[in-house]
Amino acid sequence: MKLKIKFSEWSAGRPISILSEADSKKIGAHVNDRIVIQSKTGSIISTLDISSKLVKKGQIVVSKEVIKYLALKNGEKVNIEIAKDPRVTEFLTKKLQCKELSKNEIYKIIAAISNNSLTEIEIAFFISAIYQCGMTFNEIVYLTESMFETGNKLNLKNKIIVDKHSIGGVAGNRTTPLIVAICAAQNLVFPKTSSRAITSASGTADTIEAVCKVDFNKKELEKIIRKTNACLAWGGNLGFAPADDKIIKVEKIIQIDPEPNLLASIMAKKLAAGSNHVLIDIPYGDFAKVSYKGAIHLKKQFEKIAKRFKIKIRCVLTPGNQPIGNGVGPVLELHDIFSVLQGNGPYDLREKAIFLAGEIFELTGKSKKGQGKKLAQETLDSGKALEKFKEIILAQSGNLENLSKKLAHAKFHYSYLAKKSGSIKKIDNKKINMVARLAGSPRDTKAGLFIHHHVGNKIKKGEKILTIYSSSKRRLQDAKIFYNEHKIFFI
Amino acid sequence: MKLKIKFSEWSAGRPISILSEADSKKIGAHVNDRIVIQSKTGSIISTLDISSKLVKKGQIVVSKEVIKYLALKNGEKVNIEIAKDPRVTEFLTKKLQCKELSKNEIYKIIAAISNNSLTEIEIAFFISAIYQCGMTFNEIVYLTESMFETGNKLNLKNKIIVDKHSIGGVAGNRTTPLIVAICAAQNLVFPKTSSRAITSASGTADTIEAVCKVDFNKKELEKIIRKTNACLAWGGNLGFAPADDKIIKVEKIIQIDPEPNLLASIMAKKLAAGSNHVLIDIPYGDFAKVSYKGAIHLKKQFEKIAKRFKIKIRCVLTPGNQPIGNGVGPVLELHDIFSVLQGNGPYDLREKAIFLAGEIFELTGKSKKGQGKKLAQETLDSGKALEKFKEIILAQSGNLENLSKKLAHAKFHYSYLAKKSGSIKKIDNKKINMVARLAGSPRDTKAGLFIHHHVGNKIKKGEKILTIYSSSKRRLQDAKIFYNEHKIFFI
Repeated sequence: MKLKIKFSEWSAGRPISILSEADSKKIGAHVNDRIVIQSKTGSIISTLDISSKLVKKGQIVVSKEVIKYLALKNGEKVNIEIAKDPRVTEFLTKKLQCKELSKNEIYKIIAAISNNSLTEIEIAFFISAIYQCGMTFNEIVYLTESMFETGNKLNLKNKIIVDKHSIGGVAGNRTTPLIVAICAAQNLVFPKTSSRAITSASGTADTIEAVCKVDFNKKELEKIIRKTNACLAWGGNLGFAPADDKIIKVEKIIQIDPEPNLLASIMAKKLAAGSNHVLIDIPYGDFAKVSYKGAIHLKKQFEKIAKRFKIKIRCVLTPGNQPIGNGVGPVLELHDIFSVLQGNGPYDLREKAIFLAGEIFELTGKSKKGQGKKLAQETLDSGKALEKFKEIILAQSGNLENLSKKLAHAKFHYSYLAKKSGSIKKIDNKKINMVARLAGSPRDTKAGLFIHHHVGNKIKKGEKILTIYSSSKRRLQDAKIFYNEHKIFFI
Repeated sequence: MKLKIKFSEWSAGRPISILSEADSKKIGAHVNDRIVIQSKTGSIISTLDISSKLVKKGQIVVSKEVIKYLALKNGEKVNIEIAKDPRVTEFLTKKLQCKELSKNEIYKIIAAISNNSLTEIEIAFFISAIYQCGMTFNEIVYLTESMFETGNKLNLKNKIIVDKHSIGGVAGNRTTPLIVAICAAQNLVFPKTSSRAITSASGTADTIEAVCKVDFNKKELEKIIRKTNACLAWGGNLGFAPADDKIIKVEKIIQIDPEPNLLASIMAKKLAAGSNHVLIDIPYGDFAKVSYKGAIHLKKQFEKIAKRFKIKIRCVLTPGNQPIGNGVGPVLELHDIFSVLQGNGPYDLREKAIFLAGEIFELTGKSKKGQGKKLAQETLDSGKALEKFKEIILAQSGNLENLSKKLAHAKFHYSYLAKKSGSIKKIDNKKINMVARLAGSPRDTKAGLFIHHHVGNKIKKGEKILTIYSSSKRRLQDAKIFYNEHKIFFI
C-alpha cells in the first residue's frame, strides 16, 4: 500500500508509525504490529500505532527515527506492508534454556536486531539469556562477526590505526579525550567512537556532546579524521555494528552489561573503525565492574578474541576502587578535562591519561619500551594536546567561545558535609554512579557530582565531601534520598 | 505543570503521552522518560514522546490506554510531573543473579508493575530471571499475594464459587465455554475470567470475543453473574491482579510462561474472583506444555499453594498429545463449541468437557462420587447447556442473529493434502499453535486451522489433512513457509 509521509516533528525514541484506522484495516494490521516502510533509499521496520485524528487516510506519520534513517521528505510516497515474522523466537528460547547457539542462529538474531525486526522486549530476553547462561568462545566470535558484518565500515587507508577502550564502571575516569588529544598530537590516527553510558553516569560521547556535535555520518567522520588525525564521536548513528547500539540501549535500562556482549561490542566497533592497535583499560577492585580475578579473566578473553581478528592488543589493569577526577557527569567532567589539558589537576586523572597514552606510544612503536610516558607528558605539558583537543572540538562543529556558559553549573545543587573527622578509606564507585544517574546524568548534561575528597584524604568534620547538581528539583530529591539511604563514603 | 488533554483517538498499545518541546524542557523531561499524569480520578505513569506539531504548548496528547484508565474528557486539565524512580532495578538485578527475593522486594516490583512504573523491557528482565532461576515456594506465595492485593476483587456473596483453569498448550481444547455452560445450567456460580492466549493460538477470551463483548468492569461483571450464574470474560481490564496482565503481555512476545508466574497468575485471579472450589486441567504429553512428570510436579505445587490460600482444589491430568476439536483459532473454535452444544461432535472435545464438568460437580458435592459425568452429559444432551451459553452471550452484549456472518471463514485459505496413505501417529501441538499464530490468530479472529484428522485416524494419500485460514495474504504465506519447514503430522 502506498502512503504519503506527513511530517510531525515527533520524537518517540524508536521507529514508530501512525496509520489511520482505515489503512490499518486494509492491510490487516493491528496496534503494535511491525510494519515495513519502504522508500527510495531503503527500508525500515517500525511499530504500528493507529489514530484517525493524527493522520488521515492515505497518510502516514512516522517518528523522527524513521525520517532520519530513510532520509524522508514531507509528502514523499512510501510503501507499507506487514513485516515478515523474523522467526527467531525459537532461537531466543533456546538461549534462555542455556543451549549453545549456532553461527546461523546468532547471525539471524543479530540481523533481525539490526533491521529492527525485534522489539526491545525480545532484545531484553536475549540479553538476560546471555547474562545468565554466558556464551562459548565460538558464540562470542559469531556475535562479534555478525554485529560487525551487518554494519558500516570506516574507510581509512592508514597503516597504523589506534584505539583505546575502557570497560568502564569507574565514575569520572574521563581519560579518553585526553589520550586521544595526546596521541593525535603525535600524529597517530585515532578514530575514537564511543557509546553513551551503559551503567555509568556518563559515557565519553555524553561528555563530549556537552561541548560539540558527536553525531556524524561515515563521510563526515572520515573528513574530520583526515583533518585532525582523530575524532571523539558517538558511534550510535554511524551504523557500525547497529545491532550493538540497540542492545546497549536496552542494557542501559536495567544496567547490566554481560561479558560476551561487552567483548563483542568493543571488538565489533574496533573492526568497523579499521583499528589494528588497541589498548584496553580494565579498571578493577572493590567497587569497579570487575574484581582483580575478573580483570585477569577479561584480559585473557580480549587477547584471545583480538588474535582471532588479527588485532594487536594490550590490556592494562588499573585500580578502579574510587572515582577518578573530581567531576562525575558530562559538564562536570569537562571541567576536569580542560583543567588537565591546561597543565593542572585533578592529578589522578592526569597521571592515568599519561600512563595510558604512553602505553599506546609503546604498542605502536612510536616510543621505545619504557619511553612512552615521557612522550605523553611532554605532549601534554607543551600545550600540544590542548591545541589538538580544541582542533577536534572545532572540527566537530563546536564553538569554544561560549564555553563558560556551556560549562555553567546546574540550577539546583546540594552539598553534603563530613559528619566526622578522619581519613577517607573507601568510596563506593557504583553508588556514586547511581547518585549521578538519579540526579539526571547523562541526559541532563549539567547533572552530576563534584567529589571534594578522594581515598586517603584527611578531612575535618563539617568540610564539604560531595555536591550533587541537577536541573530538576525532583531528580535532585531522588538522588538525595538514595544518598541518604546508602553508605558511599567510608571515613 | 497543568496541561490540557487533547483527544486524538490514538492507540499505541500502552500508556504514552506527547508533550510539546517547550513543556518537556520546562519540567526537564526527555523522550522515553516516565511521567505521571494526575487527574481528578487518579494517576497513571506514561512514557514520554515529544512533538511540537502533534501538540501545542499547554496541551498534552495521550494514548487511548491513558484516556480509558483515567476516564479523561477532552479539554480536561491534568497535572504532569516526572515520575519518581521506582528504584527496583537493584531487585531485578538481584533476581537475575538467581538470589531469593524478600517479601518486601517482590511487593515493590509488583506494585511498580501495577502502577506502570516499569517499562515492558524491565518486565522482560524480571520474567527471564524467573524463567531461568525459578522461585522458592515463599517467593511464589509473595508473588501471588502481591498480584492479588494490588488489584480489584469481585464481590459475590455465594457460599460456593467455582472455577476451572487449563494450563493450556493444547491447540483447540476450548472446553471452558462448554464447562461453564454445563455448570451454570446446574446453578453453580462460575465467574470465569480468562486471559488472552500466551503461547497458544487462542485463549478463551479471544475465542468468546469473536461473538460478544468480553471486556467489562467489575460492576458490569457482577451484574452478568447475578443474572446468569456465570460469565465468560476477559480478565485484563477488570483490574484483578493488574501486574499479572502486564506480565502476560510481555510473556506473549517471546512465548514463555515460567512456572512460578503460571502458578501465581492462576491463583491470584481465582482469589480475586472469590473462587473457593477450583478445578485445574493439566494437559501433559509429547507436545503439551509439560511432560507427565512435569504435570505431577505442577499438581503438587497447585495443591500446596491452594492449601496456603484455603482453596479447595482438584487437579486432573489429561492427555495433551494432540489438538482437541477440529478448529484452532477463535472463530474456528466457536464452530466446534456450537456443534457440541447442539449434541454433535467433535467427540474428543465433547468427552473432555463432560469429564471436567463432572469433576466440578463432584468437587462441589453437586453430584456423588462417580455420578458427575452423568449429570454433565444430561445437561448437555437436554439442551440446557446450549440455552445457558446463549443466555451468557446475550448478557455479554452479544447478538446471536448475525452468527453465520460472524462465523464466516477468512478471506484466504490453503489446504494441505496427505502425501501418503497411513495412520496418523502424532501431531505436534506446539507447532500447530505456531502455524495458527503465524496465520494471524488470535488477533485475526478468523485466522487459524481446521484439522481434518486426529491421531489414530487412517487417511489416504491426497485427502485433506489441514486447512490454514487467514485474513492476510502475507500471514498465510508466513504460516505456509513455517508449515513446509517443519514436521507437524507424523503418518
